[in-house]
Amino acid sequence: MAVSHIDQLIGLLARLPGLGPRSARRAALQLLKKRDSLLAPLASALTQAAETIRSCGQCGNLDTVDPCAICGDAKRDDSVICVVEEVADLWAVERSGVYRGRYHVLGGTLSALDGVGPEELKITKLVERASNAEVTEVILATNATVDGQTTAHYVADRLAQCGVGITRLAHGLPMGGELDYLDDGTLTAALKARSPA
Amino acid sequence: MAVSHIDQLIGLLARLPGLGPRSARRAALQLLKKRDSLLAPLASALTQAAETIRSCGQCGNLDTVDPCAICGDAKRDDSVICVVEEVADLWAVERSGVYRGRYHVLGGTLSALDGVGPEELKITKLVERASNAEVTEVILATNATVDGQTTAHYVADRLAQCGVGITRLAHGLPMGGELDYLDDGTLTAALKARSPA
Repeated sequence: MAVSHIDQLIGLLARLPGLGPRSARRAALQLLKKRDSLLAPLASALTQAAETIRSCGQCGNLDTVDPCAICGDAKRDDSVICVVEEVADLWAVERSGVYRGRYHVLGGTLSALDGVGPEELKITKLVERASNAEVTEVILATNATVDGQTTAHYVADRLAQCGVGITRLAHGLPMGGELDYLDDGTLTAALKARSPA
Repeated sequence: MAVSHIDQLIGLLARLPGLGPRSARRAALQLLKKRDSLLAPLASALTQAAETIRSCGQCGNLDTVDPCAICGDAKRDDSVICVVEEVADLWAVERSGVYRGRYHVLGGTLSALDGVGPEELKITKLVERASNAEVTEVILATNATVDGQTTAHYVADRLAQCGVGITRLAHGLPMGGELDYLDDGTLTAALKARSPA
């Protein structure tokens, strides 16, 4: 029997990415089955997250402190800024462990379809940061999608005035990728950017 | 940069069925992005669910009242009890809309591997309910899995003493099913249970 409180919970869970109506129902039942070990901790983790986690005023990362741990880390390289679309992308670059510079989260991509213009993204703030004399390189690490590449072009244009080096992530074969399964675009990019063996 | 509060939230979300580490991360970011429309309502829905939703002492359904809305509904048929493994199965039967009797949720299946014996399931309570003179039929609606069918057999044995009719769900072709894609077991069952056209 559907009950309003349960339905409400299922409806909210179904709005999470990756959960449809059916899996939201399973998740709700799982939560109600594991009240003490899952439901109560999740409720308090959500409340705590809502209270403590803020957007960094500098780079747009999420953290309990502002400026965030990355912006506040004196050991990181001030001369490079890696520009990403979303916080998830920042985390992805961090997981790779090779980058020790700063970040800048745009907060999305330009999109004519969705009506996202340059004002919606944190581009002005990026130009301001890149104009700092310390900064020598800006890495445009947007996604290799049409919107991501359009945004990268636009940001590169806006940064032209700052006199910093502007670089982009390399395109090519992903590690473990097999030629036969690659799309033409990737293969073309990999061929064009070939390097001496 | 991974932050303890965010990590904690991601860890809890990843324990929901249907969410892995990657989708839990996306869900956490979505929640933090939609604080007012998603995070806050979900936190309060969870707290509310923890406070108000109880297991029905009669049938094991989840509801804000005990006995639950189904057990308390005077219009439903007292003579039939539909035995299911989990609350999710009860909801599935309710969604079909054809059943107007009572339910009994076992709370799982017998499983030698997982060490689930008859004491872990609400079988004694079922025998007690089925012994009531009003009850004439018990429908064993466990899953068509090895554990489900084993449990159905065991429950049928235990109910033998009650003098009620014991029935099981039919096996056969699912609606829209194509013979070529069916497993042998289903096809065998459908053939054996064939009926005059």
